[in-house]
Amino acid sequence: MKVYEVIDTVIFDTCGDRKLEKSGDILMSGDPDMEVTGIVTSFMATVDVIRKAIAHGANMIITHEPTFYTGKDDIEWLEHDPVYLEKKKLIEDNQIAIWRFHDHMHMGHTDRIYDGLLKDIGWEEQMIEKNQPHTYEIAQTTLGELAEFFKQKLNMSVIQIVGDPAMPCSRIGILVGGGSLGLGREQMPMELMRDKNLDVMVCGEIVEWTLCAYVNDAKMLGLNKAMLVIGHERSEESGMKHMAQWLQPLVEGIPVSFIDAEEPFIYL
Amino acid sequence: MKVYEVIDTVIFDTCGDRKLEKSGDILMSGDPDMEVTGIVTSFMATVDVIRKAIAHGANMIITHEPTFYTGKDDIEWLEHDPVYLEKKKLIEDNQIAIWRFHDHMHMGHTDRIYDGLLKDIGWEEQMIEKNQPHTYEIAQTTLGELAEFFKQKLNMSVIQIVGDPAMPCSRIGILVGGGSLGLGREQMPMELMRDKNLDVMVCGEIVEWTLCAYVNDAKMLGLNKAMLVIGHERSEESGMKHMAQWLQPLVEGIPVSFIDAEEPFIYL
Repeated sequence: MKVYEVIDTVIFDTCGDRKLEKSGDILMSGDPDMEVTGIVTSFMATVDVIRKAIAHGANMIITHEPTFYTGKDDIEWLEHDPVYLEKKKLIEDNQIAIWRFHDHMHMGHTDRIYDGLLKDIGWEEQMIEKNQPHTYEIAQTTLGELAEFFKQKLNMSVIQIVGDPAMPCSRIGILVGGGSLGLGREQMPMELMRDKNLDVMVCGEIVEWTLCAYVNDAKMLGLNKAMLVIGHERSEESGMKHMAQWLQPLVEGIPVSFIDAEEPFIYL
Repeated sequence: MKVYEVIDTVIFDTCGDRKLEKSGDILMSGDPDMEVTGIVTSFMATVDVIRKAIAHGANMIITHEPTFYTGKDDIEWLEHDPVYLEKKKLIEDNQIAIWRFHDHMHMGHTDRIYDGLLKDIGWEEQMIEKNQPHTYEIAQTTLGELAEFFKQKLNMSVIQIVGDPAMPCSRIGILVGGGSLGLGREQMPMELMRDKNLDVMVCGEIVEWTLCAYVNDAKMLGLNKAMLVIGHERSEESGMKHMAQWLQPLVEGIPVSFIDAEEPFIYL
C-alpha cells in the first residue's frame, strides 16, 4: 500500500464520501507514492516520536497536530531555524512520510478523538445526548475525586483546577484539544456550561480571561461550578491510541503501532 | 475627583497625548460623573475583588482584564446568565465603577505591566536592550532554580515547565499575559527565542501546538531551550500592584489600594 492509499482509506473509513476539498490534513513530508512499511499514530510527530517510529521500522507517521509549530504548518519563517532544520534532516534522512489527520478525524460519523478518550475513561454510556460527546451525567462524585480519576486514567502527575475539591458534581462537560478555546467563539464553552447545567468543564487548552474567569466568579458566588484542565495532548492522545486498533485491519500486512507523544510539561 | 477625571489622569500620565480613539479600555459599569471615594487596582475585577473593594469603601475598580469573560467584554450573550446577573447586581447595588486599563497601560512611555513585574523580580538592570522588556541576561542559573525564583517572587505553589530542570540558562525572554500567544502571529514567540538566542521563555498564556511544541522538540534535539509557564494573572498582577503606588500621588485625597485577584488555579 502506498502513502496516498493509506490516506484515502483512513478518510473514507472515517467520513465516507465527505472528503474536504480544503483542510489541515496535509502530507507534511514524504512522497505520496512511497510504499508504506509501517505506520505509527501519535498526537504529535515530535522528534522523539519520529525517532521511535524509525526504530520500529515505520516510514509513515499519522499525527493529529502540526509538525512545525503553527496551526497551518507554515514553514516559510523556519527556513533558517535550527530546530526546524535538524528535525527536517531527521525526517528526510529516514524518508518518513508525515500526514496530519485532524479535521476529518473530528468530523467522522463519530468524532474519533472523543471515541478514543471515551474508551479510556469508560464513559460511552454516560453521554447525556446520543452522539453528543460534549456532555455527560455520571454517578455523583467530588471535584477532587474526578481529578484523581482523570489523573489515573490519563496517566498524569498533576492536574490544574479551578474550584473547590470538595464540590459535588455529576454533570460534566468535556471539550478536548483546542475546542475548549471556543472554536472562534470565546463564549461557547460558557454557554455550553450554562445551557446544559454542567457542574464541571474538563478542558484541553484554556486562556484565563474566558471560561476560567467565569468559573472562578461562579465559585465565588457559591454556584456549583468548576473546571479541570487536562491539556491539549492528554485530552486527545487517547484518540490516536485507539486509532492504531481500528486502522490495523484496514491496512492488512502493514504493522500499525501507537506511540505516546506524552505530556510536554513537568510541574515543579 | 470624578470617575472620568481619574481615567483621563491615568491615560495622560501613562501615554501623554497618545490617547487611543478606539480601545478596550472601557468603563464597564458606573457613571463617569460619579465622585470617586476610593480606588482599587487589580488584575481582574473578580467577585472577590469587588467584595473587598466594597469593604475598603472604594467605589472605583481599575482592572487590567475583562470583567465579563470575553476579550471585548460583550454582554449580549449574558443577558440571562446567572453568573453575570449576580455579579452585575453586586456591582450595581454598591454603585461600583469598573474601568479597564489595558491597551494604554501596555503602550505607555514604558509598558507599565512590565514595569511592575520587573520591580517584583528585580531585573530592571538585566534588560538586554534598553526599554525592550522582552529579553534579559542574568547570572547563569539552572531552569529548576529559575522556576524556584519565580515561584518565590510571584508567590506560586506550582510552576509548569517544558525542559530539563538541570539545564543551565542565562538568556531569558518574558512575554506576559496574552503576549506569549503571539499577538496575532503564532510564530512570534519562537522567532524571538531564536533571533535573540534565548535559553528560556517565561510565558503568560500558552497553547500546546506553538512555542510549547517548538521548545519540546528543541529539548529532544539537545538544544538549550526551555519554557516556564507562570500564567496570565501571575505575570501581569505585579503591574497592577505597583500601579497603586504611582497612581496615589495623581489622585490626592482619594485612597488607592491594590487587591490581588490571585491565581485562579489550584494543583492536585
